[in-house]
Amino acid sequence: MEIKTTQDALNFINSCDTFLFDCDGVLWNGSHVIPKSVELLSYLKSKGKRTVLVSNNSTSSRKGYLKKLEAMKFSVNEDDIFPSSYAAAYYLKEIEKLKPNDKVYVVGMGGIVDELELAGFETLGITDNVTEHTFSAANELLNKFDPNVKAVVVGFDLHMNYAKLARAFDQLNRNSDCKFIATNDDSTFPIQGGVLPGTGAWVAALKECSQKEPVITGKPSTHLFNALKKFYGLETDKTCMIGDRIDTDIAFGKNHGMKSLLVLTGISSRSSLENTPLKPDYHIESVTKLFELINT
Amino acid sequence: MEIKTTQDALNFINSCDTFLFDCDGVLWNGSHVIPKSVELLSYLKSKGKRTVLVSNNSTSSRKGYLKKLEAMKFSVNEDDIFPSSYAAAYYLKEIEKLKPNDKVYVVGMGGIVDELELAGFETLGITDNVTEHTFSAANELLNKFDPNVKAVVVGFDLHMNYAKLARAFDQLNRNSDCKFIATNDDSTFPIQGGVLPGTGAWVAALKECSQKEPVITGKPSTHLFNALKKFYGLETDKTCMIGDRIDTDIAFGKNHGMKSLLVLTGISSRSSLENTPLKPDYHIESVTKLFELINT
Repeated sequence: MEIKTTQDALNFINSCDTFLFDCDGVLWNGSHVIPKSVELLSYLKSKGKRTVLVSNNSTSSRKGYLKKLEAMKFSVNEDDIFPSSYAAAYYLKEIEKLKPNDKVYVVGMGGIVDELELAGFETLGITDNVTEHTFSAANELLNKFDPNVKAVVVGFDLHMNYAKLARAFDQLNRNSDCKFIATNDDSTFPIQGGVLPGTGAWVAALKECSQKEPVITGKPSTHLFNALKKFYGLETDKTCMIGDRIDTDIAFGKNHGMKSLLVLTGISSRSSLENTPLKPDYHIESVTKLFELINT
Repeated sequence: MEIKTTQDALNFINSCDTFLFDCDGVLWNGSHVIPKSVELLSYLKSKGKRTVLVSNNSTSSRKGYLKKLEAMKFSVNEDDIFPSSYAAAYYLKEIEKLKPNDKVYVVGMGGIVDELELAGFETLGITDNVTEHTFSAANELLNKFDPNVKAVVVGFDLHMNYAKLARAFDQLNRNSDCKFIATNDDSTFPIQGGVLPGTGAWVAALKECSQKEPVITGKPSTHLFNALKKFYGLETDKTCMIGDRIDTDIAFGKNHGMKSLLVLTGISSRSSLENTPLKPDYHIESVTKLFELINT
Protein backbone atom coordinates (compact mmCIF):
# COMPACT_ATOMS: atom_id res chain seq x y z
CA MET A 1 0.00 0.00 0.00
CA GLU A 2 1.07 3.55 -0.59
CA ILE A 3 1.66 5.55 2.59
CA LYS A 4 -0.44 8.65 1.92
CA THR A 5 -1.68 10.05 5.19
CA THR A 6 -0.27 10.88 8.59
CA GLN A 7 -2.28 8.00 10.01
CA ASP A 8 -0.75 5.61 7.41
CA ALA A 9 2.70 6.81 8.38
CA LEU A 10 2.11 6.48 12.11
CA ASN A 11 0.54 3.04 11.71
CA PHE A 12 3.54 1.97 9.66
CA ILE A 13 6.02 3.19 12.25
CA ASN A 14 4.06 1.75 15.17
CA SER A 15 4.00 -1.66 13.51
CA CYS A 16 7.78 -2.09 13.75
CA ASP A 17 10.55 -1.70 16.26
CA THR A 18 13.52 -2.03 13.89
CA PHE A 19 14.05 -0.24 10.58
CA LEU A 20 16.77 -1.44 8.23
CA PHE A 21 17.72 1.35 5.83
CA ASP A 22 19.47 0.98 2.54
CA CYS A 23 21.66 4.09 2.11
CA ASP A 24 22.38 5.26 -1.44
CA GLY A 25 19.09 6.12 -3.13
CA VAL A 26 17.27 6.20 0.22
CA LEU A 27 19.12 8.46 2.68
CA TRP A 28 21.40 10.08 0.16
CA ASN A 29 22.27 10.11 -3.53
CA GLY A 30 26.03 10.20 -3.94
CA SER A 31 27.04 13.15 -1.79
CA HIS A 32 23.57 14.74 -1.73
CA VAL A 33 21.62 14.10 1.47
CA ILE A 34 17.96 13.41 0.77
CA PRO A 35 15.96 16.03 2.69
CA LYS A 36 14.63 15.00 6.10
CA SER A 37 16.53 11.71 6.17
CA VAL A 38 18.59 12.96 9.12
CA GLU A 39 15.41 14.06 10.86
CA LEU A 40 13.62 10.79 10.16
CA LEU A 41 16.37 8.74 11.75
CA SER A 42 16.43 11.03 14.79
CA TYR A 43 12.66 10.81 15.10
CA LEU A 44 12.71 7.03 15.00
CA LYS A 45 15.42 6.89 17.64
CA SER A 46 13.47 9.30 19.84
CA LYS A 47 10.57 6.86 19.68
CA GLY A 48 12.80 4.04 20.90
CA LYS A 49 13.11 2.40 17.50
CA ARG A 50 16.29 0.76 16.31
CA THR A 51 17.66 1.97 12.98
CA VAL A 52 20.33 0.04 11.10
CA LEU A 53 22.04 1.12 7.88
CA VAL A 54 22.44 -1.93 5.64
CA SER A 55 24.33 -1.18 2.43
CA ASN A 56 25.63 -3.46 -0.32
CA ASN A 57 28.38 -0.94 -1.00
CA SER A 58 31.55 -2.66 0.21
CA THR A 59 34.03 0.12 -0.46
CA SER A 60 33.80 1.51 3.10
CA SER A 61 34.14 -0.07 6.50
CA ARG A 62 31.77 0.80 9.36
CA LYS A 63 34.32 3.41 10.47
CA GLY A 64 34.36 4.86 6.97
CA TYR A 65 30.58 5.06 6.93
CA LEU A 66 30.54 6.65 10.35
CA LYS A 67 32.79 9.45 9.09
CA LYS A 68 30.59 10.04 6.06
CA LEU A 69 27.43 9.96 8.17
CA GLU A 70 28.80 12.37 10.75
CA ALA A 71 29.80 14.76 7.98
CA MET A 72 26.21 14.56 6.74
CA LYS A 73 24.99 15.31 10.30
CA PHE A 74 23.44 11.92 10.96
CA SER A 75 23.53 10.94 14.60
CA VAL A 76 24.56 7.29 14.51
CA ASN A 77 26.87 4.82 16.24
CA GLU A 78 29.14 2.27 14.68
CA ASP A 79 26.71 -0.43 15.79
CA ASP A 80 23.98 1.13 13.66
CA ILE A 81 25.92 0.40 10.46
CA PHE A 82 26.14 -2.98 8.73
CA PRO A 83 27.74 -2.55 5.27
CA SER A 84 28.54 -5.58 3.14
CA SER A 85 32.27 -5.12 3.89
CA TYR A 86 31.50 -5.88 7.53
CA ALA A 87 28.98 -8.56 6.59
CA ALA A 88 31.74 -10.48 4.77
CA ALA A 89 34.10 -10.25 7.76
CA TYR A 90 31.31 -11.15 10.17
CA TYR A 91 30.36 -14.17 8.08
CA LEU A 92 33.92 -15.50 7.93
CA LYS A 93 34.44 -15.04 11.66
CA GLU A 94 31.07 -15.99 13.12
CA ILE A 95 29.70 -18.51 10.65
CA GLU A 96 32.71 -20.05 8.93
CA LYS A 97 34.73 -19.76 12.13
CA LEU A 98 37.97 -18.86 10.40
CA LYS A 99 40.73 -18.55 12.96
CA PRO A 100 42.60 -15.39 13.90
CA ASN A 101 45.55 -14.91 11.55
CA ASP A 102 43.94 -17.00 8.82
CA LYS A 103 44.59 -15.28 5.50
CA VAL A 104 41.98 -13.87 3.15
CA TYR A 105 42.62 -12.86 -0.46
CA VAL A 106 40.68 -9.67 -1.25
CA VAL A 107 39.49 -8.54 -4.66
CA GLY A 108 38.08 -5.25 -3.45
CA MET A 109 38.95 -2.00 -1.81
CA GLY A 110 40.01 -0.65 1.58
CA GLY A 111 36.71 -1.11 3.40
CA ILE A 112 36.82 -4.87 3.14
CA VAL A 113 40.47 -5.02 4.15
CA ASP A 114 39.80 -2.85 7.21
CA GLU A 115 36.90 -4.98 8.40
CA LEU A 116 38.75 -8.26 7.80
CA GLU A 117 41.77 -7.03 9.72
CA LEU A 118 39.58 -5.80 12.57
CA ALA A 119 38.13 -9.32 12.67
CA GLY A 120 41.68 -10.61 13.11
CA PHE A 121 42.48 -11.90 9.64
CA GLU A 122 45.53 -11.23 7.54
CA THR A 123 44.65 -9.90 4.10
CA LEU A 124 46.35 -10.28 0.73
CA GLY A 125 45.54 -8.79 -2.63
CA ILE A 126 45.30 -5.08 -2.00
CA THR A 127 48.95 -4.63 -3.02
CA ASP A 128 48.18 -6.33 -6.32
CA ASN A 129 46.36 -3.16 -7.35
CA VAL A 130 49.26 -1.65 -9.21
CA THR A 131 49.17 -2.69 -12.84
CA GLU A 132 51.47 -0.39 -14.75
CA HIS A 133 53.78 -3.39 -15.05
CA THR A 134 51.86 -6.55 -15.81
CA PHE A 135 53.50 -9.85 -15.00
CA SER A 136 55.90 -10.96 -17.69
CA ALA A 137 55.88 -14.63 -16.80
CA ALA A 138 52.53 -16.20 -16.09
CA ASN A 139 54.36 -18.73 -13.93
CA GLU A 140 55.08 -16.01 -11.40
CA LEU A 141 51.42 -15.97 -10.51
CA LEU A 142 51.38 -19.63 -9.72
CA ASN A 143 54.35 -19.23 -7.40
CA LYS A 144 52.28 -16.92 -5.23
CA PHE A 145 49.77 -19.57 -4.22
CA ASP A 146 49.40 -19.54 -0.43
CA PRO A 147 47.84 -22.58 1.26
CA ASN A 148 47.02 -20.45 4.31
CA VAL A 149 44.51 -18.39 2.34
CA LYS A 150 41.22 -19.74 3.68
CA ALA A 151 38.88 -17.43 1.79
CA VAL A 152 38.64 -15.19 -1.25
CA VAL A 153 36.38 -12.16 -0.83
CA VAL A 154 35.18 -10.22 -3.89
CA GLY A 155 33.69 -6.76 -3.52
CA PHE A 156 33.54 -3.65 -5.62
CA ASP A 157 36.97 -2.98 -7.08
CA LEU A 158 38.02 -0.01 -9.17
CA HIS A 159 41.53 -1.48 -9.38
CA MET A 160 40.70 -4.92 -10.73
CA ASN A 161 43.31 -6.44 -12.99
CA TYR A 162 44.27 -9.78 -14.49
CA ALA A 163 46.83 -10.62 -11.83
CA LYS A 164 44.21 -10.23 -9.09
CA LEU A 165 41.70 -12.33 -10.96
CA ALA A 166 44.33 -15.00 -11.59
CA ARG A 167 45.52 -15.09 -7.98
CA ALA A 168 41.98 -15.24 -6.60
CA PHE A 169 41.20 -18.00 -9.10
CA ASP A 170 44.38 -19.92 -8.24
CA GLN A 171 43.55 -19.87 -4.52
CA LEU A 172 40.06 -21.24 -5.19
CA ASN A 173 41.20 -23.69 -7.83
CA ARG A 174 44.04 -25.33 -5.94
CA ASN A 175 42.39 -25.38 -2.53
CA SER A 176 38.93 -26.88 -2.59
CA ASP A 177 38.39 -25.83 1.04
CA CYS A 178 38.96 -22.16 0.28
CA LYS A 179 35.73 -20.18 0.85
CA PHE A 180 34.45 -17.98 -1.97
CA ILE A 181 32.61 -14.91 -0.65
CA ALA A 182 31.01 -12.05 -2.59
CA THR A 183 29.92 -8.96 -0.70
CA ASN A 184 27.06 -8.64 -3.20
CA ASP A 185 26.31 -9.37 -6.81
CA ASP A 186 24.58 -6.22 -8.04
CA SER A 187 25.20 -6.20 -11.78
CA THR A 188 25.19 -2.40 -12.06
CA PHE A 189 24.81 0.73 -9.95
CA PRO A 190 23.52 4.16 -10.84
CA ILE A 191 25.50 7.36 -10.78
CA GLN A 192 24.35 10.79 -11.77
CA GLY A 193 23.72 10.66 -15.52
CA GLY A 194 24.13 6.95 -16.03
CA VAL A 195 24.90 3.46 -14.91
CA LEU A 196 28.18 1.68 -14.18
CA PRO A 197 29.12 -1.99 -13.79
CA GLY A 198 28.64 -3.31 -10.25
CA THR A 199 30.41 -5.88 -8.11
CA GLY A 200 28.46 -8.62 -9.89
CA ALA A 201 30.65 -8.21 -12.98
CA TRP A 202 33.88 -9.19 -11.22
CA VAL A 203 32.03 -11.87 -9.28
CA ALA A 204 30.84 -13.29 -12.62
CA ALA A 205 34.42 -13.31 -13.94
CA LEU A 206 35.63 -15.36 -10.98
CA LYS A 207 32.61 -17.67 -11.10
CA GLU A 208 33.30 -18.32 -14.77
CA CYS A 209 36.93 -19.32 -14.41
CA SER A 210 36.58 -21.16 -11.10
CA GLN A 211 33.22 -22.75 -11.92
CA LYS A 212 32.33 -22.17 -8.27
CA GLU A 213 29.41 -20.34 -6.68
CA PRO A 214 30.14 -17.72 -4.03
CA VAL A 215 28.39 -17.20 -0.73
CA ILE A 216 26.87 -13.74 -1.02
CA THR A 217 26.92 -11.75 2.20
CA GLY A 218 24.93 -8.72 0.97
CA LYS A 219 21.26 -8.19 0.21
CA PRO A 220 19.15 -10.15 -0.59
CA SER A 221 21.02 -13.15 0.82
CA THR A 222 19.91 -15.27 3.74
CA HIS A 223 23.46 -15.17 5.09
CA LEU A 224 23.03 -11.46 5.68
CA PHE A 225 19.63 -11.98 7.24
CA ASN A 226 21.05 -14.57 9.64
CA ALA A 227 23.90 -12.26 10.53
CA LEU A 228 21.57 -9.33 11.24
CA LYS A 229 19.19 -11.54 13.21
CA LYS A 230 22.05 -12.77 15.38
CA PHE A 231 23.73 -9.39 15.78
CA TYR A 232 20.62 -7.35 16.57
CA GLY A 233 18.27 -10.04 17.84
CA LEU A 234 15.70 -9.00 15.24
CA GLU A 235 12.06 -9.91 15.64
CA THR A 236 11.39 -10.57 12.02
CA ASP A 237 7.75 -9.49 11.90
CA LYS A 238 8.54 -6.25 13.72
CA THR A 239 11.34 -5.32 11.33
CA CYS A 240 11.03 -3.34 8.10
CA MET A 241 13.55 -3.09 5.25
CA ILE A 242 13.45 0.33 3.60
CA GLY A 243 15.11 0.52 0.20
CA ASP A 244 15.09 1.81 -3.36
CA ARG A 245 15.84 -1.46 -5.19
CA ILE A 246 13.17 -4.07 -5.66
CA ASP A 247 15.62 -6.83 -6.59
CA THR A 248 17.85 -6.41 -3.54
CA ASP A 249 16.11 -4.44 -0.78
CA ILE A 250 12.51 -5.49 -1.25
CA ALA A 251 13.49 -9.07 -2.12
CA PHE A 252 15.57 -9.16 1.06
CA GLY A 253 12.62 -8.05 3.19
CA LYS A 254 10.04 -10.29 1.59
CA ASN A 255 12.20 -13.41 1.39
CA HIS A 256 12.84 -13.30 5.11
CA GLY A 257 9.44 -12.49 6.54
CA MET A 258 10.21 -8.85 7.23
CA LYS A 259 8.08 -5.90 6.23
CA SER A 260 9.32 -3.80 3.33
CA LEU A 261 8.99 -0.20 2.19
CA LEU A 262 10.04 0.98 -1.26
CA VAL A 263 11.06 4.61 -1.82
CA LEU A 264 11.27 6.00 -5.35
CA THR A 265 14.36 8.18 -4.98
CA GLY A 266 16.83 5.63 -6.38
CA ILE A 267 16.82 2.72 -8.80
CA SER A 268 13.25 1.44 -8.88
CA SER A 269 10.57 3.70 -10.37
CA ARG A 270 6.79 3.73 -10.02
CA SER A 271 6.52 1.77 -13.25
CA SER A 272 8.98 -0.89 -12.11
CA LEU A 273 6.87 -1.18 -8.96
CA GLU A 274 3.78 -1.76 -11.11
CA ASN A 275 5.52 -4.34 -13.28
CA THR A 276 7.18 -6.48 -10.64
CA PRO A 277 5.61 -9.51 -8.98
CA LEU A 278 7.71 -8.63 -5.94
CA LYS A 279 5.43 -6.10 -4.25
CA PRO A 280 6.66 -4.27 -1.16
CA ASP A 281 4.24 -4.04 1.75
CA TYR A 282 4.50 -0.26 1.59
CA HIS A 283 5.72 2.34 -0.83
CA ILE A 284 6.15 6.09 -0.71
CA GLU A 285 7.81 8.75 -2.83
CA SER A 286 10.70 9.37 -0.42
CA VAL A 287 11.84 9.42 3.18
CA THR A 288 11.23 13.17 2.90
CA LYS A 289 7.54 12.51 2.40
CA LEU A 290 7.47 9.98 5.22
CA PHE A 291 8.94 12.46 7.68
CA GLU A 292 6.65 15.25 6.52
CA LEU A 293 3.56 13.10 7.02
CA ILE A 294 4.61 12.27 10.57
CA ASN A 295 5.56 15.81 11.35
CA THR A 296 2.30 17.52 10.36
CA MET B 1 38.86 -44.93 -33.03
CA GLU B 2 42.46 -44.78 -31.97
CA ILE B 3 44.92 -44.39 -34.82
CA LYS B 4 47.35 -47.21 -34.11
CA THR B 5 48.86 -48.44 -37.34
CA THR B 6 50.40 -46.96 -40.45
CA GLN B 7 47.35 -48.09 -42.38
CA ASP B 8 45.04 -46.30 -39.88
CA ALA B 9 47.08 -43.13 -40.30
CA LEU B 10 47.09 -43.27 -44.10
CA ASN B 11 43.37 -44.03 -44.23
CA PHE B 12 42.73 -41.07 -41.96
CA ILE B 13 44.78 -38.72 -44.10
CA ASN B 14 43.33 -39.99 -47.35
CA SER B 15 39.80 -39.41 -46.05
CA CYS B 16 40.26 -35.62 -45.90
CA ASP B 17 41.56 -32.82 -48.02
CA THR B 18 41.60 -30.09 -45.36
CA PHE B 19 43.03 -30.29 -41.86
CA LEU B 20 42.18 -27.59 -39.32
CA PHE B 21 44.79 -27.55 -36.57
CA ASP B 22 44.42 -26.07 -33.16
CA CYS B 23 47.86 -24.72 -32.16
CA ASP B 24 48.72 -24.62 -28.46
CA GLY B 25 48.61 -28.17 -27.10
CA VAL B 26 48.70 -29.65 -30.60
CA LEU B 27 51.60 -28.15 -32.59
CA TRP B 28 53.37 -26.54 -29.67
CA ASN B 29 53.14 -26.06 -25.93
CA GLY B 30 54.00 -22.47 -25.07
CA SER B 31 57.34 -21.98 -26.79
CA HIS B 32 58.12 -25.70 -27.08
CA VAL B 33 57.45 -27.13 -30.54
CA ILE B 34 55.88 -30.58 -30.35
CA PRO B 35 58.23 -32.96 -32.22
CA LYS B 36 57.37 -33.69 -35.83
CA SER B 37 54.60 -31.09 -36.02
CA VAL B 38 56.63 -29.10 -38.56
CA GLU B 39 57.23 -32.29 -40.55
CA LEU B 40 53.57 -33.33 -40.38
CA LEU B 41 52.39 -30.03 -41.84
CA SER B 42 55.00 -30.22 -44.61
CA TYR B 43 54.00 -33.80 -45.38
CA LEU B 44 50.32 -32.87 -45.65
CA LYS B 45 51.11 -29.97 -47.97
CA SER B 46 53.29 -32.22 -50.13
CA LYS B 47 50.25 -34.47 -50.56
CA GLY B 48 48.17 -31.54 -51.77
CA LYS B 49 46.23 -31.17 -48.53
CA ARG B 50 45.21 -27.83 -47.15
CA THR B 51 46.27 -27.09 -43.57
CA VAL B 52 44.75 -24.23 -41.60
CA LEU B 53 45.78 -23.13 -38.10
CA VAL B 54 42.64 -22.24 -36.15
CA SER B 55 43.39 -20.88 -32.69
CA ASN B 56 41.12 -19.33 -30.05
CA ASN B 57 44.10 -17.33 -28.80
CA SER B 58 43.28 -13.75 -29.80
CA THR B 59 46.44 -12.04 -28.58
CA SER B 60 48.17 -12.28 -31.97
CA SER B 61 47.15 -11.26 -35.45
CA ARG B 62 47.80 -13.49 -38.47
CA LYS B 63 51.04 -11.54 -39.00
CA GLY B 64 52.02 -12.16 -35.39
CA TYR B 65 51.37 -15.87 -35.77
CA LEU B 66 53.32 -15.96 -38.99
CA LYS B 67 56.37 -14.57 -37.22
CA LYS B 68 56.08 -17.10 -34.41
CA LEU B 69 55.56 -19.95 -36.89
CA GLU B 70 58.51 -18.95 -39.02
CA ALA B 71 60.71 -18.79 -35.94
CA MET B 72 59.57 -22.33 -35.15
CA LYS B 73 60.47 -23.36 -38.73
CA PHE B 74 56.93 -24.00 -39.90
CA SER B 75 56.46 -23.35 -43.58
CA VAL B 76 53.13 -21.50 -43.75
CA ASN B 77 51.48 -18.53 -45.43
CA GLU B 78 49.29 -15.88 -43.87
CA ASP B 79 46.29 -17.51 -45.54
CA ASP B 80 46.94 -20.71 -43.60
CA ILE B 81 46.27 -18.95 -40.27
CA PHE B 82 42.83 -18.10 -38.89
CA PRO B 83 43.16 -16.99 -35.24
CA SER B 84 40.14 -15.70 -33.32
CA SER B 85 41.51 -12.14 -33.58
CA TYR B 86 41.06 -12.36 -37.34
CA ALA B 87 37.78 -14.26 -36.98
CA ALA B 88 36.32 -11.31 -35.05
CA ALA B 89 37.42 -8.80 -37.69
CA TYR B 90 36.23 -11.06 -40.50
CA TYR B 91 32.84 -11.47 -38.84
CA LEU B 92 32.32 -7.74 -38.40
CA LYS B 93 33.35 -6.99 -41.96
CA GLU B 94 31.85 -9.89 -43.91
CA ILE B 95 28.81 -10.85 -41.86
CA GLU B 96 27.78 -7.74 -39.94
CA LYS B 97 28.91 -5.57 -42.86
CA LEU B 98 30.28 -2.80 -40.68
CA LYS B 99 31.49 0.05 -42.85
CA PRO B 100 35.07 1.21 -43.25
CA ASN B 101 35.91 3.72 -40.52
CA ASP B 102 33.21 2.41 -38.21
CA LYS B 103 34.61 2.33 -34.70
CA VAL B 104 35.11 -0.75 -32.54
CA TYR B 105 35.79 -0.71 -28.81
CA VAL B 106 38.34 -3.40 -27.94
CA VAL B 107 38.77 -5.14 -24.61
CA GLY B 108 41.78 -7.15 -25.65
CA MET B 109 45.32 -6.94 -26.87
CA GLY B 110 47.26 -5.91 -29.94
CA GLY B 111 46.33 -8.82 -32.18
CA ILE B 112 42.67 -7.85 -32.28
CA VAL B 113 43.45 -4.19 -32.86
CA ASP B 114 45.78 -5.06 -35.75
CA GLU B 115 43.21 -7.25 -37.47
CA LEU B 116 40.38 -4.76 -36.99
CA GLU B 117 42.49 -1.95 -38.40
CA LEU B 118 43.53 -4.09 -41.36
CA ALA B 119 39.82 -4.66 -41.97
CA GLY B 120 39.40 -0.87 -42.10
CA PHE B 121 37.91 -0.13 -38.70
CA GLU B 122 38.99 2.47 -36.20
CA THR B 123 39.65 0.99 -32.78
CA LEU B 124 39.25 2.40 -29.30
CA GLY B 125 40.11 0.96 -25.92
CA ILE B 126 43.71 -0.08 -26.20
CA THR B 127 44.82 3.25 -24.72
CA ASP B 128 42.62 2.59 -21.72
CA ASN B 129 45.17 0.01 -20.60
CA VAL B 130 47.01 2.29 -18.24
CA THR B 131 45.55 2.12 -14.77
CA GLU B 132 48.06 3.61 -12.39
CA HIS B 133 45.65 6.53 -12.08
CA THR B 134 42.06 5.35 -11.88
CA PHE B 135 39.32 7.80 -12.79
CA SER B 136 38.46 10.11 -9.96
CA ALA B 137 35.01 11.02 -11.24
CA ALA B 138 32.84 8.19 -12.48
CA ASN B 139 31.07 10.76 -14.64
CA GLU B 140 34.16 11.06 -16.80
CA LEU B 141 33.50 7.57 -18.11
CA LEU B 142 30.03 8.48 -19.24
CA ASN B 143 31.37 11.48 -21.14
CA LYS B 144 33.42 9.14 -23.30
CA PHE B 145 30.41 7.42 -24.88
CA ASP B 146 30.82 7.43 -28.67
CA PRO B 147 27.74 6.79 -30.83
CA ASN B 148 29.99 5.77 -33.73
CA VAL B 149 31.19 2.67 -31.89
CA LYS B 150 29.32 -0.07 -33.73
CA ALA B 151 30.80 -3.05 -31.92
CA VAL B 152 32.54 -4.10 -28.72
CA VAL B 153 35.04 -6.95 -29.12
CA VAL B 154 36.28 -8.84 -26.05
CA GLY B 155 39.33 -11.06 -26.27
CA PHE B 156 42.06 -12.14 -23.91
CA ASP B 157 43.28 -9.10 -21.99
CA LEU B 158 46.14 -8.97 -19.52
CA HIS B 159 45.47 -5.25 -19.03
CA MET B 160 41.80 -5.38 -18.13
CA ASN B 161 40.62 -2.73 -15.72
CA TYR B 162 37.43 -1.16 -14.43
CA ALA B 163 37.50 1.78 -16.85
CA LYS B 164 37.63 -0.59 -19.84
CA LEU B 165 34.82 -2.70 -18.48
CA ALA B 166 32.75 0.40 -17.80
CA ARG B 167 33.36 1.92 -21.23
CA ALA B 168 32.59 -1.35 -23.03
CA PHE B 169 29.44 -1.68 -20.93
CA ASP B 170 28.41 1.92 -21.57
CA GLN B 171 28.71 1.45 -25.35
CA LEU B 172 26.54 -1.66 -25.23
CA ASN B 173 24.10 -0.24 -22.72
CA ARG B 174 23.36 3.07 -24.40
CA ASN B 175 23.37 1.80 -27.98
CA SER B 176 21.14 -1.21 -28.48
CA ASP B 177 22.48 -1.63 -32.04
CA CYS B 178 26.07 -2.01 -30.85
CA LYS B 179 27.33 -5.54 -31.62
CA PHE B 180 28.83 -7.55 -28.78
CA ILE B 181 31.56 -9.92 -29.99
CA ALA B 182 33.73 -12.33 -28.00
CA THR B 183 36.71 -13.94 -29.71
CA ASN B 184 36.07 -17.01 -27.54
CA ASP B 185 34.77 -17.91 -24.13
CA ASP B 186 37.27 -20.43 -22.83
CA SER B 187 37.00 -20.19 -19.06
CA THR B 188 40.64 -21.12 -18.42
CA PHE B 189 43.82 -22.01 -20.25
CA PRO B 190 46.76 -24.14 -19.20
CA ILE B 191 50.30 -22.95 -18.70
CA GLN B 192 53.24 -24.97 -17.54
CA GLY B 193 52.53 -25.90 -13.94
CA GLY B 194 48.97 -24.70 -13.74
CA VAL B 195 45.89 -23.03 -15.08
CA LEU B 196 44.98 -19.36 -15.57
CA PRO B 197 41.69 -17.55 -16.20
CA GLY B 198 40.74 -17.38 -19.87
CA THR B 199 38.90 -14.87 -22.03
CA GLY B 200 35.61 -16.29 -20.77
CA ALA B 201 36.12 -14.56 -17.42
CA TRP B 202 36.10 -11.03 -18.87
CA VAL B 203 33.32 -12.02 -21.24
CA ALA B 204 31.28 -13.15 -18.23
CA ALA B 205 31.90 -9.81 -16.50
CA LEU B 206 30.55 -7.87 -19.47
CA LYS B 207 27.62 -10.27 -19.93
CA GLU B 208 26.69 -9.80 -16.28
CA CYS B 209 26.58 -6.02 -16.30
CA SER B 210 25.11 -5.61 -19.80
CA GLN B 211 22.74 -8.57 -19.54
CA LYS B 212 23.55 -9.23 -23.20
CA GLU B 213 24.87 -12.33 -24.95
CA PRO B 214 27.88 -11.99 -27.22
CA VAL B 215 28.38 -13.49 -30.64
CA ILE B 216 31.37 -15.80 -30.21
CA THR B 217 33.69 -15.92 -33.19
CA GLY B 218 36.04 -18.65 -31.92
CA LYS B 219 35.65 -22.42 -31.56
CA PRO B 220 33.19 -24.08 -31.19
CA SER B 221 30.89 -21.43 -32.67
CA THR B 222 28.95 -21.75 -35.88
CA HIS B 223 29.99 -18.18 -36.78
CA LEU B 224 33.57 -19.42 -37.07
CA PHE B 225 32.50 -22.45 -39.06
CA ASN B 226 30.59 -20.26 -41.51
CA ALA B 227 33.58 -17.95 -41.85
CA LEU B 228 35.99 -20.83 -42.53
CA LYS B 229 33.55 -22.42 -44.97
CA LYS B 230 33.25 -19.18 -46.89
CA PHE B 231 36.95 -18.29 -46.76
CA TYR B 232 38.33 -21.71 -47.70
CA GLY B 233 35.35 -23.25 -49.50
CA LEU B 234 35.47 -26.21 -47.12
CA GLU B 235 33.87 -29.49 -48.04
CA THR B 236 32.65 -30.33 -44.59
CA ASP B 237 32.86 -34.11 -44.80
CA LYS B 238 36.39 -33.95 -46.18
CA THR B 239 37.62 -31.67 -43.40
CA CYS B 240 39.06 -32.73 -40.05
CA MET B 241 39.50 -30.61 -36.92
CA ILE B 242 42.59 -31.65 -34.97
CA GLY B 243 42.72 -30.41 -31.40
CA ASP B 244 43.52 -31.05 -27.75
CA ARG B 245 40.30 -29.73 -26.18
CA ILE B 246 37.13 -31.74 -26.29
CA ASP B 247 34.89 -28.81 -25.34
CA THR B 248 36.15 -26.48 -28.06
CA ASP B 249 38.03 -28.36 -30.79
CA ILE B 250 36.15 -31.64 -30.86
CA ALA B 251 32.80 -29.94 -30.23
CA PHE B 252 33.57 -27.62 -33.14
CA GLY B 253 34.25 -30.54 -35.47
CA LYS B 254 31.32 -32.66 -34.41
CA ASN B 255 28.75 -29.85 -34.28
CA HIS B 256 29.46 -28.91 -37.88
CA GLY B 257 29.66 -32.28 -39.61
CA MET B 258 33.45 -32.32 -39.84
CA LYS B 259 35.70 -35.15 -38.79
CA SER B 260 37.65 -34.71 -35.58
CA LEU B 261 40.92 -35.99 -34.14
CA LEU B 262 41.87 -35.55 -30.50
CA VAL B 263 45.53 -35.46 -29.48
CA LEU B 264 46.50 -35.90 -25.83
CA THR B 265 49.34 -33.39 -25.61
CA GLY B 266 47.26 -30.53 -24.19
CA ILE B 267 44.13 -30.09 -22.09
CA SER B 268 42.09 -33.25 -22.54
CA SER B 269 43.49 -36.50 -21.16
CA ARG B 270 42.74 -40.13 -21.95
CA SER B 271 40.39 -40.26 -18.98
CA SER B 272 38.49 -37.15 -20.08
CA LEU B 273 38.14 -38.84 -23.47
CA GLU B 274 36.64 -41.87 -21.77
CA ASN B 275 34.26 -39.80 -19.67
CA THR B 276 32.88 -37.44 -22.30
CA PRO B 277 29.80 -38.10 -24.41
CA LEU B 278 31.48 -35.99 -27.10
CA LYS B 279 33.63 -38.65 -28.77
CA PRO B 280 36.05 -37.58 -31.50
CA ASP B 281 36.10 -39.72 -34.66
CA TYR B 282 39.80 -40.36 -34.07
CA HIS B 283 42.27 -40.00 -31.29
CA ILE B 284 46.02 -40.44 -30.99
CA GLU B 285 48.71 -39.65 -28.45
CA SER B 286 50.23 -36.79 -30.42
CA VAL B 287 50.96 -35.37 -33.85
CA THR B 288 54.43 -36.85 -33.27
CA LYS B 289 52.92 -40.31 -33.26
CA LEU B 290 50.80 -39.55 -36.31
CA PHE B 291 53.83 -38.47 -38.33
CA GLU B 292 55.88 -41.44 -37.16
CA LEU B 293 53.18 -43.88 -38.24
CA ILE B 294 53.05 -42.34 -41.70
CA ASN B 295 56.78 -42.17 -42.01
CA THR B 296 57.61 -45.79 -41.24
